[in-house]
Amino acid sequence: MHPSRGMDFTSHMEAALEEARAAQSRGEVPVGAVVVTQAGEIVGSAGNRTRADNDPTAHAEILAIRQACAHLGSERLTGCALYVTLEPCPMCAGAIAAARIAKLYYGASDPKSGGVASGARVFTHPQCHHTPEVFDGISERAAATLLRDFFAGRRGL
Amino acid sequence: MHPSRGMDFTSHMEAALEEARAAQSRGEVPVGAVVVTQAGEIVGSAGNRTRADNDPTAHAEILAIRQACAHLGSERLTGCALYVTLEPCPMCAGAIAAARIAKLYYGASDPKSGGVASGARVFTHPQCHHTPEVFDGISERAAATLLRDFFAGRRGL
Repeated sequence: MHPSRGMDFTSHMEAALEEARAAQSRGEVPVGAVVVTQAGEIVGSAGNRTRADNDPTAHAEILAIRQACAHLGSERLTGCALYVTLEPCPMCAGAIAAARIAKLYYGASDPKSGGVASGARVFTHPQCHHTPEVFDGISERAAATLLRDFFAGRRGL
Repeated sequence: MHPSRGMDFTSHMEAALEEARAAQSRGEVPVGAVVVTQAGEIVGSAGNRTRADNDPTAHAEILAIRQACAHLGSERLTGCALYVTLEPCPMCAGAIAAARIAKLYYGASDPKSGGVASGARVFTHPQCHHTPEVFDGISERAAATLLRDFFAGRRGL
C-alpha cells in the first residue's frame, strides 16, 4: 500500500536517513526515525543510540517517539506518522502501537529481526489494541545499502 | 516451570509488587518490575510511569531495564533476572530479549495485552535472538488483585 503525497513522504524519509547516517558516524547500527504531525512538523528525530547510551531500548523509533511525546506533552501521538529506515523490531512495533501512531512508513525489510512483516508480526494479533497503516519499501535501497555497508565493514574488522 | 530457590524469587516479586502499589498511588496502571543480578542485588526498580512522564514506553520493565543498564554501565544485562507483576507486552518482551535478560519471572497472565504466552509470543520466533527462561504465575494472586481493583475503580468513576 502506498500513500499519495509522494514529495512529503520521501522528504521525511530523507530526514530519517540523515539520522541513520549520523548514527553510523557514531559507530551505531545505522537506523534513523522521525515523527511527523498531521501538519507536517517533525516533532521527534533520532538515530540508534544503544551503545552511546548503554541502553538496549535506545532504538531510533523509541527515542523519536519519546522525544515527540515530550514535545507535545502527551503519551499519545494520535494522527502522527513515524518514518523509520528499517522495519521495526517487536519492541518498537509495540511502542508504535502504544503511542497510537497513525501511519508507519519504513524503508528496508528486516527478515532477520523485524516484528512487523516478519516473526512476531505485532500488529496482527487481537492483543494489539492499535494498528497503524503500514507503508513499506520507502527509500528502501538507500536504507538497505547503509545497513549492508555497515555490517560488511564490521565483518571486515 | 518453577525455580528452586523459593525465598529469593518471592522476595524479589514482593519488591516488584511494592513498585506496582506505588504506581497505583500515582494513578498509573499498577505494574512493577525489578532487575536482579546473579549475586542477588536489585539494580533496577520501577513502576509504570506512562502518565506521569507522558511516555508510552515508560512501562515498568523498560524503566527497570534502563535503570539497571545505567547502573551497570552496559547495554546488556547478561545473567540478570527480571521480575514483573504482569505478563510483559510485546514492547517489553522485545526489550527483555534485547537486554539479554537470563530469567523472566512474572505474576499475572495478560491474555488481553500480553506478548509472551499470548498474542505475538515474541520469544517463540527465530527473529528473537535471545530467549530468557520464563517462570509464570509468581505471586499471581496479589498481582492480579491489584490490577482488578484498579480497573474496577476506574470503571466506577
